[in-house]
Amino acid sequence: MSAEKKSDRERGEEWWRTGIIEMHPGVIRLRGYEIQDLIGRVSFPAMIWLMLRGELPSEEQAALLGIALGAAVDHGPQAPSIAIARMAATCGVGINNAMASAINVLGDVHGGAGEQALALYGDIAAAMDGGASLAEAVSARLDRFFAEEKGYVPGLGHRFHPIDPRVPRLMQLTRAFAARGSVSGRFAGIAEAIEAEVATRKGKTIPLNIDGATAVIYGELGFPPPLTRGLFVLSRSVGILAHAWEQSQESDRNKGPLPKEWLWAYTGTPARPFPGDAD
Amino acid sequence: MSAEKKSDRERGEEWWRTGIIEMHPGVIRLRGYEIQDLIGRVSFPAMIWLMLRGELPSEEQAALLGIALGAAVDHGPQAPSIAIARMAATCGVGINNAMASAINVLGDVHGGAGEQALALYGDIAAAMDGGASLAEAVSARLDRFFAEEKGYVPGLGHRFHPIDPRVPRLMQLTRAFAARGSVSGRFAGIAEAIEAEVATRKGKTIPLNIDGATAVIYGELGFPPPLTRGLFVLSRSVGILAHAWEQSQESDRNKGPLPKEWLWAYTGTPARPFPGDAD
Amino acid sequence: MSAEKKSDRERGEEWWRTGIIEMHPGVIRLRGYEIQDLIGRVSFPAMIWLMLRGELPSEEQAALLGIALGAAVDHGPQAPSIAIARMAATCGVGINNAMASAINVLGDVHGGAGEQALALYGDIAAAMDGGASLAEAVSARLDRFFAEEKGYVPGLGHRFHPIDPRVPRLMQLTRAFAARGSVSGRFAGIAEAIEAEVATRKGKTIPLNIDGATAVIYGELGFPPPLTRGLFVLSRSVGILAHAWEQSQESDRNKGPLPKEWLWAYTGTPARPFPGDAD
Amino acid sequence: MSAEKKSDRERGEEWWRTGIIEMHPGVIRLRGYEIQDLIGRVSFPAMIWLMLRGELPSEEQAALLGIALGAAVDHGPQAPSIAIARMAATCGVGINNAMASAINVLGDVHGGAGEQALALYGDIAAAMDGGASLAEAVSARLDRFFAEEKGYVPGLGHRFHPIDPRVPRLMQLTRAFAARGSVSGRFAGIAEAIEAEVATRKGKTIPLNIDGATAVIYGELGFPPPLTRGLFVLSRSVGILAHAWEQSQESDRNKGPLPKEWLWAYTGTPARPFPGDAD
Repeated sequence: MSAEKKSDRERGEEWWRTGIIEMHPGVIRLRGYEIQDLIGRVSFPAMIWLMLRGELPSEEQAALLGIALGAAVDHGPQAPSIAIARMAATCGVGINNAMASAINVLGDVHGGAGEQALALYGDIAAAMDGGASLAEAVSARLDRFFAEEKGYVPGLGHRFHPIDPRVPRLMQLTRAFAARGSVSGRFAGIAEAIEAEVATRKGKTIPLNIDGATAVIYGELGFPPPLTRGLFVLSRSVGILAHAWEQSQESDRNKGPLPKEWLWAYTGTPARPFPGDAD
Repeated sequence: MSAEKKSDRERGEEWWRTGIIEMHPGVIRLRGYEIQDLIGRVSFPAMIWLMLRGELPSEEQAALLGIALGAAVDHGPQAPSIAIARMAATCGVGINNAMASAINVLGDVHGGAGEQALALYGDIAAAMDGGASLAEAVSARLDRFFAEEKGYVPGLGHRFHPIDPRVPRLMQLTRAFAARGSVSGRFAGIAEAIEAEVATRKGKTIPLNIDGATAVIYGELGFPPPLTRGLFVLSRSVGILAHAWEQSQESDRNKGPLPKEWLWAYTGTPARPFPGDAD
Repeated sequence: MSAEKKSDRERGEEWWRTGIIEMHPGVIRLRGYEIQDLIGRVSFPAMIWLMLRGELPSEEQAALLGIALGAAVDHGPQAPSIAIARMAATCGVGINNAMASAINVLGDVHGGAGEQALALYGDIAAAMDGGASLAEAVSARLDRFFAEEKGYVPGLGHRFHPIDPRVPRLMQLTRAFAARGSVSGRFAGIAEAIEAEVATRKGKTIPLNIDGATAVIYGELGFPPPLTRGLFVLSRSVGILAHAWEQSQESDRNKGPLPKEWLWAYTGTPARPFPGDAD
Repeated sequence: MSAEKKSDRERGEEWWRTGIIEMHPGVIRLRGYEIQDLIGRVSFPAMIWLMLRGELPSEEQAALLGIALGAAVDHGPQAPSIAIARMAATCGVGINNAMASAINVLGDVHGGAGEQALALYGDIAAAMDGGASLAEAVSARLDRFFAEEKGYVPGLGHRFHPIDPRVPRLMQLTRAFAARGSVSGRFAGIAEAIEAEVATRKGKTIPLNIDGATAVIYGELGFPPPLTRGLFVLSRSVGILAHAWEQSQESDRNKGPLPKEWLWAYTGTPARPFPGDAD
């Protein structure tokens, strides 16, 4: 139908066009598949893949995606997201609201390192596609990183864990999937080469962290970097829900960050009279 | 250790106590299990179950949970949650922020019907535990419902779908799990008895909807009603992410609800001079 | 225009109808007034009033509204909303996102008491309109409250302040506005009668709190109870912004609720092997 | 007190230190002032200023701040923030939740132009402090802008209004405040010089917009660019609340972006069988 002939209603309906879902009375199709054909035949991670990528994954791809999603569900109530979920659950709002306040803070700093790590890996992969060896590509990219950026190489190092127990397990599994030909193993190699090169330069190993390890998996599976933050949200939402739910079973009301008989330290201007008032 | 002997630091650490996650440098345990023992051995739905319930599910339980989670991922951009995710994605915020604004509206009206349906089923199950027959329990509960409430019976009827294509499939699968002894089938029976009794009273069938069907599954699996809303958030988050991502690939900025050359209708006070100004 | 003749575009534009704002190219009218006629001639509280109520307030009404809005801007970082704003500001999200996560928790428990207090006052005012004396109306309503509800009378008592320093000042100002005839003073009288009657029944004074005192003002000004929560959001947003901003000037990243070298206490299932693994 | 001697409780209380608010039982001080000394003596905009800046403004400064806050309260339901507030209000969540979902999208694109405009003005002011004339500083900064950036100069141009009716009024008022010596007028001069220089380069006037005009005022008043987004949130929250409230008085449930009998256009993969199923 030509643009000139479109009715206003068609114009309105096109304003909300999507390639994800088609619906008619009695019909729901996701990416072209009848929903009743999907239900009970594809796993939850496979449904996530289909929705985000447009095609069904292989069983191996869905399994590896599920592994990455399961690994990052929680890191405890000292994480701001989890603390926020728990405090929100005591304020008289719905569990969806508590989850929203928490998910909302999974930004560049709290959860964003995976996206940055995968972008770094992707730069190195692109250099290798252009003919560089792994060692050359890693070295050149790290030269640029240390020239341009301050702080830690994305995907390396952890404030708390000397070795994060999730990481060796995730890398072992990724290598096993690669050995079976389900993924290429290229991103695992890149991440390990970065870790080794940084260790050489710094004189000590700064081990791969959970952001780096999940970025490896998401890279192996072909996800673009910005989507990894969305996948992290899906994963961490599980812990956020579990903590909001646990907290909601307690009697606390308006739970603050410190025990309720404590106060904060005041560091500002000392008490003073209102201008013009006699002291 | 007695309460009197607790140090301030212990008091602070107890303020944030949890039974979900234990952590030490190099150690992460979820519900008592080392995380590296869980990764790669339990499915993503099994991890969700463990986090929310405290124990690992059977494979069948995890599979049925995954089915319910996969069924409700999306209902298209006319749903306020999806529309909000898409508009937010055009406003220069992170994908986690777009997800949060959307998840935040999955409240009593938009997503809450599952919680209400499961509470209704639970009342009937309790009456049966007290000796009533299924028919008696359903009839008595509906008598009370129609006396106290206005509007639709939770879990029945849909504005758009005469028969929601997800529902027969979900009920068929639930019956199959019950036939294998993985669940009892009790909640499936209750929901179908409600549907039949309402049809008798109204003179027409108001079919079970997706909220009612997923409430059946969550009830079969032993989830308390308020958690079903949290599970719905996990499920719909997938569609919310997919739509936010799709929209972010377009060039729209500040996408409004109507095509950009349209306006809203103004229905308020006609133009008037500021008080005291000459007309 | 008859409904039959409406075009699809008109149907779309009516879907978003509003009586608040009218716009055409070069024209913005709020509640019928040209915006350029309002700017510089009405105070910010008067603009808030116009937007919410549809008519301009008197100068006295706007002043009293501004007093209530200014009084509740902050209660420190032990309030969950303020703590959330501060933690969010360290997570790499925008200041608007930090504000949203915080505002989102101002629900029934954290901020909702004003709405409940004003509803209580309104019941008493209605009984007086029906002929009851103030003392009768208060006594009857409190009889019902103590029969039906558990917990504190809305608007009375504070966990922290024996006397909240804002309350006597707000009541004094309200009485002064009433003495000038700007408001009736009726809600001030109701709140004080509740405080006195509860003191008689309990044998000790449970003093009016900030929620009760601002509810008095919002009642005097004619705001319906559900809007008082919205007004509280506008007020507390100021403190939320101030704290998010102050925190964003510090170098903290992923600020948790406790000092970063502390952990939470774990209270759950002790460490255990994965099912089937040798111990 | 030396760091070594700090108790754990002091350590916890310092973790939440702030210079904004001091509290003890019966005492609330903001920036050093007793709150009862502020209530009824400073306007709501003056309270906002005190909270954000640490000192009380002059009456003129508070008045000009109030003017900027009042000018940007609403731009109608085609703005994503307002549409989100209205849709959220139909989903069974609190009015604070509806406001949060809306405020959350006031990001770099939807509301962020003021911050960018003020940063641009600040660069020019800095060049003038270094000895450049206004014309030189504007020209050099625009040279750099057009070399580095694509798209519109922040603060100029509007999709909808040929002349935004708020802008001439805001500039007239700013000039009047400058004439009285309440502000310097420097940022007004910079913005107008940018508008003139862009007109010369483009051959047509792209007029100052509301983001540019409020950035002028916030610059005149000494606010740093990132705070202008927070001030915009305070301002637009008023419209967000008004629209959420108006919508909540209607009977709509789960209001979607288009009239409820419409659908979206589906643009994706046509209907297809599940892999392996016979067609």
